[in-house]
Amino acid sequence: MKALVFDGSLHLEEINLPQPRQDEALIRVKLAGICNTDLEITKGYMDFSGVLGHEFVGVVDLCSDETLIGKRVVGEINVACGSCEYCMNGMKKHCSDLSVIGINNRDGCFAEFVVLPIDNLHLIPETVPDEEATFVEPLAAAYHVFESVWVKPSSMVLIIGDGKLGLLISMAASSLGIEHTMVGRHPERFAMLDSNVNTISSEGQPDLKSCYDIVIEATGNEQGMALALSAVKPAGTIVLKSTYSHIPNVDLSRVAVNELKIVGSRCGRFEDAIRFLEKKSVKPVQLIDRIFPFDNALEAFDYAPGHLKVLLRM
Amino acid sequence: MKALVFDGSLHLEEINLPQPRQDEALIRVKLAGICNTDLEITKGYMDFSGVLGHEFVGVVDLCSDETLIGKRVVGEINVACGSCEYCMNGMKKHCSDLSVIGINNRDGCFAEFVVLPIDNLHLIPETVPDEEATFVEPLAAAYHVFESVWVKPSSMVLIIGDGKLGLLISMAASSLGIEHTMVGRHPERFAMLDSNVNTISSEGQPDLKSCYDIVIEATGNEQGMALALSAVKPAGTIVLKSTYSHIPNVDLSRVAVNELKIVGSRCGRFEDAIRFLEKKSVKPVQLIDRIFPFDNALEAFDYAPGHLKVLLRM
Repeated sequence: MKALVFDGSLHLEEINLPQPRQDEALIRVKLAGICNTDLEITKGYMDFSGVLGHEFVGVVDLCSDETLIGKRVVGEINVACGSCEYCMNGMKKHCSDLSVIGINNRDGCFAEFVVLPIDNLHLIPETVPDEEATFVEPLAAAYHVFESVWVKPSSMVLIIGDGKLGLLISMAASSLGIEHTMVGRHPERFAMLDSNVNTISSEGQPDLKSCYDIVIEATGNEQGMALALSAVKPAGTIVLKSTYSHIPNVDLSRVAVNELKIVGSRCGRFEDAIRFLEKKSVKPVQLIDRIFPFDNALEAFDYAPGHLKVLLRM
Repeated sequence: MKALVFDGSLHLEEINLPQPRQDEALIRVKLAGICNTDLEITKGYMDFSGVLGHEFVGVVDLCSDETLIGKRVVGEINVACGSCEYCMNGMKKHCSDLSVIGINNRDGCFAEFVVLPIDNLHLIPETVPDEEATFVEPLAAAYHVFESVWVKPSSMVLIIGDGKLGLLISMAASSLGIEHTMVGRHPERFAMLDSNVNTISSEGQPDLKSCYDIVIEATGNEQGMALALSAVKPAGTIVLKSTYSHIPNVDLSRVAVNELKIVGSRCGRFEDAIRFLEKKSVKPVQLIDRIFPFDNALEAFDYAPGHLKVLLRM
């Protein structure tokens, strides 16, 4: 099958069709999304080698559970051992022997087929088109912010960063009825947010000094974190959603003196993302900038940096 | 009166006796403790100018509430406005118009007399000697760790740093029945801890990889924070107790990916520290390295770095 492989360099190549085990399914990939993590991996992040990609929708092609064959599915990206302390405590994503498709020690979905454990699959309702279904994984991560921190009716909430993740978090917040402010560098993107969102262009160097109970840092850069630290109230919470390509300087004295909380937040529940997509409470398709045929995957990777969502159609 | 003043340089000088307002008390200082924060201030931290010092025990000399005169007291160090959002919500230490004795915009206790609001004072029981009473402020900060994070019976707890604060936190933990491990550079100090404490010398470069649910960082240096990040389990919590003289590099990607929590924790409730001292559940006097007469305060400041608690007797 055709696959987009990274092994120090990025290239399309013909590789063997993967063989699912008894508890796994072979899925024919229909549409897949390029994530910033994929771009980081091509710069060396995670030291990953293999088939890239972790956001996709596809159709089950081969599976020991025959009722699944032909069904349209998305797949959770973390493949856990099922038997360690974390797996036994319902924290599979922190499994001590974790692999993650397209990120850590397991082939991903930028290929004609991908293999995943049956337990990782979620059926996609007919009313959710492929383009929306590819957003289930990042949208689940966006909803997970609000599993990580308690937003009260009185909470002043700020989202920093109007990249894909920041925009999805804003959409998720709006679907949950959470009032919030978005600060970002691309005011032209604000139009896709709910009209109730208070938007601020970061170009104007806004004074956000200690105004917010909860600050969601979705930029992944040192300036974003510094802004978060200055924008959060004493005893407030910063939610970290991003990985950082460099190890940033962080004013920890401020964290101690102002008794701040910093809360890391990663992957979320696919069930929630699918339910909100089905209810049409979120419309992430607005984030799609361009869809490339899979044969043009290298061109898509060149195009993706600085753009919103780029998809690959297999 | 005689006072130890920092105004760019540190010196003993004769200054006017401070005059208490109607809601304040004038306290004759008996014994005072030198804290690392005092040493940092003499290097420029907080840009403070005035009488240094915030750990003390004394006797009320002048006060509108005559029942207090002659009583032995300690004093909370944060002087709040009483009317801002934080004060109204019971968060006086985060008052937006805060002053802090000997630290921020208010004269401290390294003097023959100090003035504090009556509301800041706590009576010291007769069974608690002066030497122990000077530990109320740092001991309250130590107990506050366990107000900041929920320690469960199953929690694996690590304290990093065997300086004064780390040792007090260990003593506080033991008095609360909290099993824990202490890692530090001074194994000779471990003898003063409860015999149930698991102690590890950091000289041996111990492998603490992802073993602990709760890590209490009490070193205030970048290496301590790096050790905390490697020692904490996925989804675990790091409690930050220290200020940092330099802004450290922090691996925030690890915080996001492992969904860690970082919780800043500063001053605590004097009531708790006094109660545990009265019950003899903690014995901080072991931490006293040396007591200097106030006239030798400059010598005491030269001596203090690298030593445990140094006191000044007025």
